Amino acid sequence: MSVPESDLPPPVPADMPERETASTFRPVAEGMEAHINVYHPVLDHGFIAVKDYMGDDLSILQMARMSYGKGTKGTGDDRALLRYLMRHQHTSPFEGCVIKLHVKLPIFVMRQWVRHRTASLNEYSARYSIMPDEFYLPEPAHLAVQSSDNKQGRGATLSAEQARAVLDLLRDDARHSFATYHRLLNADEDGNRLDPEGVGIARELARIGLPLSAYTQMYWQTNLHNLMHFLRLRADPHAQWEIRVYAEKILEIMEAWLPTTFEAFRDYQLEAVRLSRMEMALLKDMLAGRAKPEDGERYGLSKREMREFAARFGEM
Amino acid sequence: MSVPESDLPPPVPADMPERETASTFRPVAEGMEAHINVYHPVLDHGFIAVKDYMGDDLSILQMARMSYGKGTKGTGDDRALLRYLMRHQHTSPFEGCVIKLHVKLPIFVMRQWVRHRTASLNEYSARYSIMPDEFYLPEPAHLAVQSSDNKQGRGATLSAEQARAVLDLLRDDARHSFATYHRLLNADEDGNRLDPEGVGIARELARIGLPLSAYTQMYWQTNLHNLMHFLRLRADPHAQWEIRVYAEKILEIMEAWLPTTFEAFRDYQLEAVRLSRMEMALLKDMLAGRAKPEDGERYGLSKREMREFAARFGEM
Amino acid sequence: MSVPESDLPPPVPADMPERETASTFRPVAEGMEAHINVYHPVLDHGFIAVKDYMGDDLSILQMARMSYGKGTKGTGDDRALLRYLMRHQHTSPFEGCVIKLHVKLPIFVMRQWVRHRTASLNEYSARYSIMPDEFYLPEPAHLAVQSSDNKQGRGATLSAEQARAVLDLLRDDARHSFATYHRLLNADEDGNRLDPEGVGIARELARIGLPLSAYTQMYWQTNLHNLMHFLRLRADPHAQWEIRVYAEKILEIMEAWLPTTFEAFRDYQLEAVRLSRMEMALLKDMLAGRAKPEDGERYGLSKREMREFAARFGEM
Amino acid sequence: MSVPESDLPPPVPADMPERETASTFRPVAEGMEAHINVYHPVLDHGFIAVKDYMGDDLSILQMARMSYGKGTKGTGDDRALLRYLMRHQHTSPFEGCVIKLHVKLPIFVMRQWVRHRTASLNEYSARYSIMPDEFYLPEPAHLAVQSSDNKQGRGATLSAEQARAVLDLLRDDARHSFATYHRLLNADEDGNRLDPEGVGIARELARIGLPLSAYTQMYWQTNLHNLMHFLRLRADPHAQWEIRVYAEKILEIMEAWLPTTFEAFRDYQLEAVRLSRMEMALLKDMLAGRAKPEDGERYGLSKREMREFAARFGEM
Repeated sequence: MSVPESDLPPPVPADMPERETASTFRPVAEGMEAHINVYHPVLDHGFIAVKDYMGDDLSILQMARMSYGKGTKGTGDDRALLRYLMRHQHTSPFEGCVIKLHVKLPIFVMRQWVRHRTASLNEYSARYSIMPDEFYLPEPAHLAVQSSDNKQGRGATLSAEQARAVLDLLRDDARHSFATYHRLLNADEDGNRLDPEGVGIARELARIGLPLSAYTQMYWQTNLHNLMHFLRLRADPHAQWEIRVYAEKILEIMEAWLPTTFEAFRDYQLEAVRLSRMEMALLKDMLAGRAKPEDGERYGLSKREMREFAARFGEM
Repeated sequence: MSVPESDLPPPVPADMPERETASTFRPVAEGMEAHINVYHPVLDHGFIAVKDYMGDDLSILQMARMSYGKGTKGTGDDRALLRYLMRHQHTSPFEGCVIKLHVKLPIFVMRQWVRHRTASLNEYSARYSIMPDEFYLPEPAHLAVQSSDNKQGRGATLSAEQARAVLDLLRDDARHSFATYHRLLNADEDGNRLDPEGVGIARELARIGLPLSAYTQMYWQTNLHNLMHFLRLRADPHAQWEIRVYAEKILEIMEAWLPTTFEAFRDYQLEAVRLSRMEMALLKDMLAGRAKPEDGERYGLSKREMREFAARFGEM
Repeated sequence: MSVPESDLPPPVPADMPERETASTFRPVAEGMEAHINVYHPVLDHGFIAVKDYMGDDLSILQMARMSYGKGTKGTGDDRALLRYLMRHQHTSPFEGCVIKLHVKLPIFVMRQWVRHRTASLNEYSARYSIMPDEFYLPEPAHLAVQSSDNKQGRGATLSAEQARAVLDLLRDDARHSFATYHRLLNADEDGNRLDPEGVGIARELARIGLPLSAYTQMYWQTNLHNLMHFLRLRADPHAQWEIRVYAEKILEIMEAWLPTTFEAFRDYQLEAVRLSRMEMALLKDMLAGRAKPEDGERYGLSKREMREFAARFGEM
Repeated sequence: MSVPESDLPPPVPADMPERETASTFRPVAEGMEAHINVYHPVLDHGFIAVKDYMGDDLSILQMARMSYGKGTKGTGDDRALLRYLMRHQHTSPFEGCVIKLHVKLPIFVMRQWVRHRTASLNEYSARYSIMPDEFYLPEPAHLAVQSSDNKQGRGATLSAEQARAVLDLLRDDARHSFATYHRLLNADEDGNRLDPEGVGIARELARIGLPLSAYTQMYWQTNLHNLMHFLRLRADPHAQWEIRVYAEKILEIMEAWLPTTFEAFRDYQLEAVRLSRMEMALLKDMLAGRAKPEDGERYGLSKREMREFAARFGEM
């Protein structure tokens, strides 16, 4: 009962809702409208699609300005005020924007995703319904050995031959698990028994042998403040590559949605750097010509911190 | 420097944004569009206005159906599925709807409102800006003595003469506090000194003598699941009347927004009743003719519980 | 490289911390002290252990009494006040109690558990470390066919022979997946290559073929208010049996921790029943002799609601 | 009926619970035990007291180590691992520590405090009980004019004479408001009418004229992760002085509770600095001798950012 890859359903749902237009009095973000109900493929069988959103760059400013009342001058410049809010981490106005995504993703990615608790989500239920025969297989280019210096990362990629061997193993096992799943279910979606001689066990039990690479799907909704936190952690090089590709697609979507906020987010958060008390002390003395990066130990930096500091400031 | 009531600004902001229409691919709730940027007066100087929203009855169903996959039959009937979700407290699909309100309200009402923590809010800042000279005065009909049996409630209303005396006291004190506030500020919104001989203290200090009846305003945003929780508590007869009028206005708005969900909310939550283990036991025996309401003690009901049970089921 | 069952590590960690006693000024719940660092087996390789807790029955009352000030009489009776708080869903005082658990559980159970977002958790990381060779196998008595009337539940159990066949399938597949996992890792915990000819891929990739039945572990911490919500949902007959056994163990622990609160929780929440507006109307008329359960349709009950109502009140 | 200051109750409750010792198997933080039920005065009538806590430095490490399994070497050094967690913002292990405080504070401070939503709180109820005649009066040293460059701050302090005039105004008004309050209540705590001729209105209404400087009290509980967020914002020079004194007292308590974590918190968070993408670019060029602080505009810094950058790095 194993499934030939060519028969797998396409990543994008066939019964995709049509894009219909309607009239609204709400704020509209033009760049985001182009994304509504558009399914972007991610990984081999996954996708991301914007189902709904609330707010735009201006609505963030509107919330902030109500708060300041008439008491602030010089907030007439929209871009400057947005950047000020981002720089000083005035988080409330950003909570006024909300995004609702439809995401299809491997279960092991989902398990990292749900660690972000300040969000609403609804997942496909394998207790009610049968899991489709879809599982994630890395592309050879992303198959790598364990990193030796980063306990949770990857090192060098495999040779073509090694990669083929690994993928064969993963593919065969996953197909085997799905075949067992169907044998245990012994039923179609409507509950009709397939093999009249056999028995079928409950869906909630039959699925326990499925691999972590199996695809699931969810609606996921969060506000912009929490979305940016998600992006800081998951679009980061330390994140597992398979969740990072989702985060990077969301970064693109965010840029289309809120262009000015996105620019400020990049400048003051994504590409900002936090320096410790000790790093600041060392840096000041370096600028005054009183110290060099290799003096870090005197300032209380650990060996690892010194390496990271040198990587940033050492080569000058 | 006290302010004649007739000079108070109208409850609805003069610089109310115009209602502008635009085109969107998002779900649109027709009944809610009529509310966008419409300011509804509440109390003597307060208001509620919908600034934005996300979702409609159908989008709740869409989330639920993704979750069930093809695994459920008989969910073709929209109304029946919505009622099923509400009845069984499947909360996730309701989180997919969001509302953003602009609310002007007395500070003592705000202090009850913020107890609902799962919401985003932005309040007018009395550190940045000067508080407008507006405070709440109850209408004579809502001036009542302390309830003798409900420790947090009101009893009989006052006579017209008594009410006038109370209102005079409250009004004079509030005006006096605002006059002191302005004397301490000694400045206009732009920071220009008013009395050149006098001194002015910081806004964050000058406001500490203002009364709890002073009006503030906020943007408040929450999802439908948390909104319904707010409504169950604050549209309840045990809530202070001054917050209840806000909750009741929101109930109206919710009905326009999500007519089918609202009906289910009323049937399975607002007007539903929770019976304890003991009440259920008593009730079953009453139906079997083996007990009467006054037997409650035998079933473990306290005197108070027996009174409440009798109020519900006793008169049959 | 498959693992004989007898070699599996025992459910309870070998390096269990010793129970050490110390002196504290904090509130102490005697019944809970007996649970600290005691590992209770759950399922075939799982466990639950209390690592820490905060609060007792009296500390709930202390919070409530501060709130009421001197304004309430008749709250001298501790048990009565606790029951009053539970009955009227005054949730804040219950949030003052906190529990921290160490739980070992199958991944498919973990995935249900994390849906409860208002909690803190730390999970074993399969990116840093190697997953132990442990997976869940149901006992024959819990192997059941798909329920025909409950889309997410189980029906009749299997015969001994059928059960054996199912378990053989599940066991063989899980062992096979773990064997592949080790082959892909080709390394021990310290990162030493096992087969010098072979290659080993990153831990975060090697694990994607492991089954959902594999065991993971976590520290999970939540306050009593959210714990009771968890218990209402997960100790319920509609919950999957494999999470229910964890919830039932926590119920036992809660009873030892907070005996008076537990009793109130059972009476006013766990075994309480919520009746809809329509059910209440029907019930009142039944008590007055004006209606029978089978008249439900007239009151707006659906067929399913009528069946459930009859199951509760019909047999009188 | 106004209240002479000398008759005001002392900041610390007279009926303070005795400190009683008991034995526990839980982790104990010696430095924190000394704080349990000790009431620290804050402002003129406020206080802070630790009522309960959970966790210590070691329990943070225990959570982190479970997560890393056997997969990390070099985490044997407790202090180094704690600092690593803090530096890389691994927040989950810090959530495992919880603190419960009893705080008495002016209402305008409380209103800032409750903006921190991820906490549990229980406040004294002015609907149930009568508010004590206590209000905050700044010390002359903290009476300052509005800052001209910081819209939400204070500038120069007042002269002794000016301060006296301001305090007289604030004191007289507050006393007057409390006198009105009692006249409107016309009742003692037990509900006995005081002036038999007069009428008394409900407590929930009588209090609306009380000033924002009136004292209230609460139990406030939060986990360490959220506590540190609170401290970063409220122990900051931009916070209003009256909340900062509470935050500073909590910093002292945290240092006694978790000495190693506290040190890491100071080094990597409290006294750390975040530099934007543009500041980093400028800094690198300054270190390479290719730029000076006054070149900021070329790098995209606003005038305000340039001033702040110069204050940090300009004087070299």
